[in-house]
Amino acid sequence: MTEMLNISSRRFDAAFRESFRDLVLWRRDVRRFRRDPVDSSLIHSLIELASHAPSVGHCQPWRFVLVESAARRAAVKESFGRSNAKAAETYRDQERERYVKLKLEGLEEAPVHLAVFADETTRAGSGLGRQTMPETLRYSVVAAVQTFWLAARAEGLGVGWISILEPNIVCRMLDVPEAWTLVAYLCVGQPAEEHLDPELERHGWQERLDTERMIFRR
Amino acid sequence: MTEMLNISSRRFDAAFRESFRDLVLWRRDVRRFRRDPVDSSLIHSLIELASHAPSVGHCQPWRFVLVESAARRAAVKESFGRSNAKAAETYRDQERERYVKLKLEGLEEAPVHLAVFADETTRAGSGLGRQTMPETLRYSVVAAVQTFWLAARAEGLGVGWISILEPNIVCRMLDVPEAWTLVAYLCVGQPAEEHLDPELERHGWQERLDTERMIFRR
Repeated sequence: MTEMLNISSRRFDAAFRESFRDLVLWRRDVRRFRRDPVDSSLIHSLIELASHAPSVGHCQPWRFVLVESAARRAAVKESFGRSNAKAAETYRDQERERYVKLKLEGLEEAPVHLAVFADETTRAGSGLGRQTMPETLRYSVVAAVQTFWLAARAEGLGVGWISILEPNIVCRMLDVPEAWTLVAYLCVGQPAEEHLDPELERHGWQERLDTERMIFRR
Repeated sequence: MTEMLNISSRRFDAAFRESFRDLVLWRRDVRRFRRDPVDSSLIHSLIELASHAPSVGHCQPWRFVLVESAARRAAVKESFGRSNAKAAETYRDQERERYVKLKLEGLEEAPVHLAVFADETTRAGSGLGRQTMPETLRYSVVAAVQTFWLAARAEGLGVGWISILEPNIVCRMLDVPEAWTLVAYLCVGQPAEEHLDPELERHGWQERLDTERMIFRR
């Protein structure tokens, strides 16, 4: 089979790998956006690339909803407000003080709101690969989100993932089929600031852990 | 805030974006590996880069288990065998014939087996961001897997994600803490073949869907 190796293969060089490393390191969860609009064709091309993420059984279960209505965006922000107030109550004293000072979303300023769903009832892929681990359907959507995120960053766009939301309420409000699961609610736009370190590290919430301590042998 | 824009920012050019697009397009779920060993330091550096994936609350819940024991690898392969036989029974006639001909794993040949888990009880991040959507803990691990996959492909390595497994049995067999959830079981090594089209497309199981049909407006 070795003869087949170089027939149709794409190689990547050290310079590309170094830039790719930078891309991963400079990706950030952005919460401070400029209001400048983003070209709709650029968003479509990022989604198209994201659709080449791996999916279980090649079922391509991702569904992308561009949230454009001001009323719907306001309702998402309200859902964040309620969820965040409840979350703040679970912390005490200094930790609560630190929590409420964190900026955790840029829903107001971000020109693009993109809700990403998993279609749990898709017939594509005929169920292949997800009988013992059905959650891989939703995992496929996450792989598309991370691909979108990196591709957006390569275009100079920032992405923020907001998980402090009531998923049932957001699904109802966005009027999507019942079989769709909300996987990610993304804000996209030009970042107002750029940083190499994550916001939660910079503000003393959580430091980076030592990777070697995350590797085990069996 | 605009003044802060260019102080510490990394820009990416069109040539990089084109190569990144190729990387996403040429990533494959590989099931045919050469047996050549892969340098352990390379695997560690890929894991290190993957650890810069986004994680909810910066909780970095990924735990990487290198499965080296021949007995454990054999047990994983047995789990695949059982799960795959059951899966085949759910298809009929020609679909079953096509299913059983598909090559869905390269467990025997792949020099590296990497099981990736989510530590559901990590204290890192202090629960931030996952009170209403706790599944984002596991989603963070998937983002790390996709980052690992792309980084591996840039090094010429192939990755295959095997989901046709009994997760409870694999967890027990790998002797990991009870609070860890199996997210992905990966085979890693030099690919014996390289293709631009997914295996399941090439063998007529599932074609690529039209991305524009996956985009909705609200």
